[in-house]
Amino acid sequence: MSRSVDTYNGWYAYHDFRKIDWNKWKSLKPSHRQQMIQELQKKAEEYQKTEDDNKGSFAQYAVLSHEADLMLIHLRPTIEELNEVKFGWDKTGFADFTTASYSFLSVVELSAYTIPPGVDPLDDPVFRARLQPILPKTQYVCFYPMNKRRVGNDNWFMLPIEERRKMMKSHGMIGRQYEGKVRQIVTGSTGLDDWEWGVSLFSDDPLYFKKLVYEMRFDEASARFGEFGSFYIGNRLTMDGLTSLLTDNING
Amino acid sequence: MSRSVDTYNGWYAYHDFRKIDWNKWKSLKPSHRQQMIQELQKKAEEYQKTEDDNKGSFAQYAVLSHEADLMLIHLRPTIEELNEVKFGWDKTGFADFTTASYSFLSVVELSAYTIPPGVDPLDDPVFRARLQPILPKTQYVCFYPMNKRRVGNDNWFMLPIEERRKMMKSHGMIGRQYEGKVRQIVTGSTGLDDWEWGVSLFSDDPLYFKKLVYEMRFDEASARFGEFGSFYIGNRLTMDGLTSLLTDNING
Amino acid sequence: MSRSVDTYNGWYAYHDFRKIDWNKWKSLKPSHRQQMIQELQKKAEEYQKTEDDNKGSFAQYAVLSHEADLMLIHLRPTIEELNEVKFGWDKTGFADFTTASYSFLSVVELSAYTIPPGVDPLDDPVFRARLQPILPKTQYVCFYPMNKRRVGNDNWFMLPIEERRKMMKSHGMIGRQYEGKVRQIVTGSTGLDDWEWGVSLFSDDPLYFKKLVYEMRFDEASARFGEFGSFYIGNRLTMDGLTSLLTDNING
Amino acid sequence: MSRSVDTYNGWYAYHDFRKIDWNKWKSLKPSHRQQMIQELQKKAEEYQKTEDDNKGSFAQYAVLSHEADLMLIHLRPTIEELNEVKFGWDKTGFADFTTASYSFLSVVELSAYTIPPGVDPLDDPVFRARLQPILPKTQYVCFYPMNKRRVGNDNWFMLPIEERRKMMKSHGMIGRQYEGKVRQIVTGSTGLDDWEWGVSLFSDDPLYFKKLVYEMRFDEASARFGEFGSFYIGNRLTMDGLTSLLTDNING
Amino acid sequence: MSRSVDTYNGWYAYHDFRKIDWNKWKSLKPSHRQQMIQELQKKAEEYQKTEDDNKGSFAQYAVLSHEADLMLIHLRPTIEELNEVKFGWDKTGFADFTTASYSFLSVVELSAYTIPPGVDPLDDPVFRARLQPILPKTQYVCFYPMNKRRVGNDNWFMLPIEERRKMMKSHGMIGRQYEGKVRQIVTGSTGLDDWEWGVSLFSDDPLYFKKLVYEMRFDEASARFGEFGSFYIGNRLTMDGLTSLLTDNING
Repeated sequence: MSRSVDTYNGWYAYHDFRKIDWNKWKSLKPSHRQQMIQELQKKAEEYQKTEDDNKGSFAQYAVLSHEADLMLIHLRPTIEELNEVKFGWDKTGFADFTTASYSFLSVVELSAYTIPPGVDPLDDPVFRARLQPILPKTQYVCFYPMNKRRVGNDNWFMLPIEERRKMMKSHGMIGRQYEGKVRQIVTGSTGLDDWEWGVSLFSDDPLYFKKLVYEMRFDEASARFGEFGSFYIGNRLTMDGLTSLLTDNING
Repeated sequence: MSRSVDTYNGWYAYHDFRKIDWNKWKSLKPSHRQQMIQELQKKAEEYQKTEDDNKGSFAQYAVLSHEADLMLIHLRPTIEELNEVKFGWDKTGFADFTTASYSFLSVVELSAYTIPPGVDPLDDPVFRARLQPILPKTQYVCFYPMNKRRVGNDNWFMLPIEERRKMMKSHGMIGRQYEGKVRQIVTGSTGLDDWEWGVSLFSDDPLYFKKLVYEMRFDEASARFGEFGSFYIGNRLTMDGLTSLLTDNING
Repeated sequence: MSRSVDTYNGWYAYHDFRKIDWNKWKSLKPSHRQQMIQELQKKAEEYQKTEDDNKGSFAQYAVLSHEADLMLIHLRPTIEELNEVKFGWDKTGFADFTTASYSFLSVVELSAYTIPPGVDPLDDPVFRARLQPILPKTQYVCFYPMNKRRVGNDNWFMLPIEERRKMMKSHGMIGRQYEGKVRQIVTGSTGLDDWEWGVSLFSDDPLYFKKLVYEMRFDEASARFGEFGSFYIGNRLTMDGLTSLLTDNING
Repeated sequence: MSRSVDTYNGWYAYHDFRKIDWNKWKSLKPSHRQQMIQELQKKAEEYQKTEDDNKGSFAQYAVLSHEADLMLIHLRPTIEELNEVKFGWDKTGFADFTTASYSFLSVVELSAYTIPPGVDPLDDPVFRARLQPILPKTQYVCFYPMNKRRVGNDNWFMLPIEERRKMMKSHGMIGRQYEGKVRQIVTGSTGLDDWEWGVSLFSDDPLYFKKLVYEMRFDEASARFGEFGSFYIGNRLTMDGLTSLLTDNING
Repeated sequence: MSRSVDTYNGWYAYHDFRKIDWNKWKSLKPSHRQQMIQELQKKAEEYQKTEDDNKGSFAQYAVLSHEADLMLIHLRPTIEELNEVKFGWDKTGFADFTTASYSFLSVVELSAYTIPPGVDPLDDPVFRARLQPILPKTQYVCFYPMNKRRVGNDNWFMLPIEERRKMMKSHGMIGRQYEGKVRQIVTGSTGLDDWEWGVSLFSDDPLYFKKLVYEMRFDEASARFGEFGSFYIGNRLTMDGLTSLLTDNING
């Protein structure tokens, strides 16, 4: 009998991190920059229409790091659509002034650890909304990838399901203390990306990201079994915000 | 007596990952791009002829990652032929608009774990077809390299062959549940590349990649002994598909 | 009950490491260099005004390493303000002659380990000054990021709080021996950056950095539980110092 | 008393891996390319003369990898001569169309494990030929660096010499089964390069590389104690072969 | 009571590794190259004067590696002076034809392990000369950084001082066997650089580097506790040697 746990999967997610070549960008004529921003605006409207049609979601963020300046998050029902989004963005004029420094491919996931027995999440509008989520409009996002450890005695995947369930329950209870303060979208990436999961946290106060992740770190599920990749903090950009970022204080 | 297990080897495989320099590519005149695509078309016809002559196989994919835009998989009877393929492709005009971000050299392999005793796979047309496979025409591919762990008590290569055989059998049974949904080509790379094996999974639904790899992760052979490299997800490109990717929505 | 320890958080910190492209910089006309230095001067005045208004702090250093030439440290009450600082600096002319080789996002932190019971640090002007610190004007700085280890029996986050408190107390006593010689600002970065903490040491004699860190390394909190990232040593630059660095001995 | 084992050392070896900038190379006029190939030809003649004078050896290979296109192996009696070779090659015109992506510095070595007691290898012409070897003219080469592990209970350098000798003997017996099929040159690099040893295998059938390395991996000396770097597979290039590689199918 | 061991510190050391852009360098007019070499010559005279005044030391080496072509070692009483040296060199014309691929900041150190009780090294001219050393004029140098391990049972910093002292004594006795053949300068870098120590070995026969480091590897202090970074081998360059390296066999 398989020791695995069922997961319910929704939309695919592509987190796309871009570094801006400011030198090249600033050297453009203002009219040229305007033209490219209008093209981005058109893209954003396309993405918004997809979201309005309930066929995906999109958000963009300024990133506070040397590794990236922008984080774009796209949700879509299929990988093929994400491919189109990726290559469509690559073909914009502005893309030429960026390099892709990181990306993450995953699929929105609810694990059976967190679903009451006897419930089929696909029949339940609440669960369905969690599998096909609209990205929250909070001011900040925190993204990080993670694995469950498989080292010596700390091997998550060798534990009995009861033990794992108990630890995930305790883990979930910490998360619940942040209800109303932090929203979380967990995406599974085993077989799709180098890490097993991605975590996207949404809040209006980034201190909650620190408090939540720090508190969880003392929880056995993280303390003994969590392995973490890079953490990225983003500041949500409306289209106006992106325009300001790309044009304010640049001499014509 | 050697503790090793016999393997039967077929064609060599070269997985070639390319990142496109979109900026440079888009700056070309359309006629120049067309000319280069025609050259790629000619190459693809050559590769197809090799496949028709049963002397190799070829497939190309769009990759959803910041690390690569294209994955090319070539199978050939000898390394020398793969060398010719590699350098022949490098000499195309389009190659100048790409950089090779990753590659993997291996050889198609059936291990004795999975072969019934008394069978010589080279005498058996079914086994032979598995050693010299035509790459499946599924819409998606998942590629990843892997090792068997050699750390402390989790040392695969120090286990008795019976234990290894038992674990590989259990592993194979998970794979069998995906029959008809996922096709798998395992290639051996010990002594040829940095990892010991490459796994190429083929499916029309990429969710099966996640389900299969996740389920296997709870299996002792993976949980205790699997070490995994990067995962790459590709979307199959016909020649028309590649042409679209390289020309659609690019202003003349 | 949570095993976590309360932390009190103050200003956010952004450590920004820049490598200068000397070749490009030296190829400029002197008047062009002067103009850019004046722009930096104006930025420095802005940052100083923020410090004077008690709304942040700023310091800049020459770095002795192949990985960076400059370290800029910015403190601000919010991440949004740090974002503005980052992108504002990126838009200066001089920024085009640098690349960002490393950065670190964190928030000034006092942990409950070090706070006497019954004290609310936000009510106490001394503690408040430690949470919203003006960067010391010492000649040297030493910055490094760190984690607490979670490996096998050396798992900090699985220890009882009493044990952790005892070790942190011993750790703090070593630090206290350097009072008057080394000032320390600890910033927390769990959930914000790849490491859990950043340590910024300030001294007029860099040998104290070595002595302090070396002595602590024999302390159980470091010996068994400390994991360290890169160490960067900076030499404080006044605006005149930066001007000298950027203009002396460069032929017109 | 030292637990170390005597080694007998011969010529120094420099493995030099080069990636070709095909784009730049193809953009040259054919006559310019010809001129550079003639310069390489002259270098190759110099190297051949050194080999004829029994003062070193040289071979070049096409590499099937994204990390390198060419592998050059030079053997010389001193490091100073290898330095001259390295910088002499850097000064050729063709070198400007390559980047050095990897290199390995080591010295040919016979360990006392493999030498019968009472034999001084320097008195023995067979051993001397193994210390100052002419690189075999096989079609393929396999190169990889390695360490002996020093982790917990798997610490090679803490084992008694008898245990190490026994394991190395078993290891050598696997190698002997490939006599006539694979020739091996082991070079020591402790104190010279990042790894402790380099292994260069020579064969006309690259499948032997895989079989040999895979079989050895089950041997305790590798299974418990072997740590391996990158594996590179090369296809030997005569001067004509190199000329073809650099000129065939490139439009004038 | 602190478990730490006193160290006596002398001059600061900056190891600066540079890769030459031969393509760019060779494209210069000979007169331009000559001019830059004269500037380097002037720098070397400055450094020599500092050495003559007993205020520092300097040596330069050709490096046999793809990672660097030159190693420059500077010793100075303060970090501020090393900063001046670094930025002064960056401003030479030749620096524009190099990139800094690695560097190491440390301070010459004698540990109490090796000092007889009752001796204050600063009162002793022999010890003082070891703390403020003139770099030996041997033909070869070997540099590598290292840590003492802190993993599970192999945690150097948790050992009682007697055990550490015993191991360091045995370690030192191996070194003493190479007296007259290899000179060693140990520099401490805890708190200054990513590694805890740097080791610079000087000899006229590079085989001693291999023999010494290999023999030490079987010593418990290295076998169980040594962690090593990259090893760099340099060939000493007089100013004439550097001029030859930079001008011989380059066509005008």
